[in-house]
Amino acid sequence: MSKGQLIVYSGPSGVGKGTLMYPYLQEHPEAVLSISMTTRQPRPGETDGVEYYFVSHEEFEKQIIQDGLLEYARYSGNYYGTPRKMVEERIQQGQDVVLEIEVQGAMKIKQSYPDAVFIFVLPPSFSVLEARLRGRGTESEEVIAARLAAAKRELGTAALYDYIIVNDDLEQARKRLEAVIAAAKCQTKYMKDFIDEVTK
Amino acid sequence: MSKGQLIVYSGPSGVGKGTLMYPYLQEHPEAVLSISMTTRQPRPGETDGVEYYFVSHEEFEKQIIQDGLLEYARYSGNYYGTPRKMVEERIQQGQDVVLEIEVQGAMKIKQSYPDAVFIFVLPPSFSVLEARLRGRGTESEEVIAARLAAAKRELGTAALYDYIIVNDDLEQARKRLEAVIAAAKCQTKYMKDFIDEVTK
Repeated sequence: MSKGQLIVYSGPSGVGKGTLMYPYLQEHPEAVLSISMTTRQPRPGETDGVEYYFVSHEEFEKQIIQDGLLEYARYSGNYYGTPRKMVEERIQQGQDVVLEIEVQGAMKIKQSYPDAVFIFVLPPSFSVLEARLRGRGTESEEVIAARLAAAKRELGTAALYDYIIVNDDLEQARKRLEAVIAAAKCQTKYMKDFIDEVTK
Repeated sequence: MSKGQLIVYSGPSGVGKGTLMYPYLQEHPEAVLSISMTTRQPRPGETDGVEYYFVSHEEFEKQIIQDGLLEYARYSGNYYGTPRKMVEERIQQGQDVVLEIEVQGAMKIKQSYPDAVFIFVLPPSFSVLEARLRGRGTESEEVIAARLAAAKRELGTAALYDYIIVNDDLEQARKRLEAVIAAAKCQTKYMKDFIDEVTK
C-alpha cells in the first residue's frame, strides 16, 4: 500500500477554503481533515474531537515538550496546534490528510514534511475578497478593517506555496483543486521508490 | 490572455506515449503537438509539415547557426530538432505546446524553459515494457535487445522530470496526465504575475 499525501491548505479568511475543500473530502473518502488541538474554550455547538480537540494548557504544554505537535502557535492567549500522531498514522495507512492552517504553521510543516503539497487559495482580486468579508454584514468596520489588513498580509505569503487555486469560478476552482491533489501524487519526488523498482 | 504552457513529454519506446497523449490533444484544442525538423528522408506516407518539417542539411545547419532551434541532436547521420519560432509563437498566443522528445533534448529545454512542465511516462514494470516491445513481433531479437537496452537507459533518466505517469491502467493514466497538465498551470511559478496583481 502506498503512503498517503499530506495536503497543507491555506488562504485568507473569506476566500472560500471550506466551500472548495468540503466537496472534495466528500468525494474522496481516502482524504481526511486533520483536527487541531486547542486550549480555547469550546463555543456552543462545538464538540471535542470534531471541530477541535479541546485540552487544558497543561496538557497542551505536555504535548509541546513531548514533540507531539507538528506545529503550534499561540493566539490571544490560547494555543492551537496539529497533533503529530493522528497525521502520521493516517499517512502510513495510505490516507491523505488535509491540514487547513495559517502560513506560519504551514512553513513549519514544510521543514519537517518537504514532500507535503502546499496549496494556497487566492481570490480573483482583492476587491472580491473585501466584498466577501463585508458581505457577512455582522461585524463592525473596525473588525473588518483588521481582517482586511490580515488578509493582505496573508496574500503576500502565497508565493511560498507550491500551487495557487484562484477561486474565481467555483466549479473551475474545484476542478483545479482536484487536479492539483491528483498531480501531487505523480510528482517525481513521491515516485522515487517506484522509479528505483522499475529501473533496477 | 494568459501564456500557454510548454509540455515536455518523454518515455521509452513502447510505453504508450501516443496512446496516452492523442486523446488528450483531441479533447484539448488549446494544446498542440510541436512538429520537429529533420534532415532524414520522408518515408512513404509522411508529409512535410505533418510528421516532420523535412529540410536539407544546409537548411538545418542555417537554423542551428541562427539559433532557430530550441534543441537538436544528430542520430545515424541525420539531424532532428525543435523549431523555436513555432513553439514560442503558440505559447505567446496562449496555446499549450507538447514536445515529445528524448531525454537529452528535454534537458536542453529545461535550461532555456525552466517553467515548462516535464512529464515522463513509465511502464508498471520493466517486464511489461519488454512484452510490449516484443509484442510487435516484427523485429529481430537483435533489434529488440538493442531497444531494451535503450529503454533501460531512458528509464534511468525519469527522475530528472517533474512528474511521472505510470501507464498501468490506460484510463487511470489518462486521468493522471490530465491532472498533471491542469495542475502545472496552478504552480506558483506560473502565477507570479497574478499574485503580484492581487497582493499589490
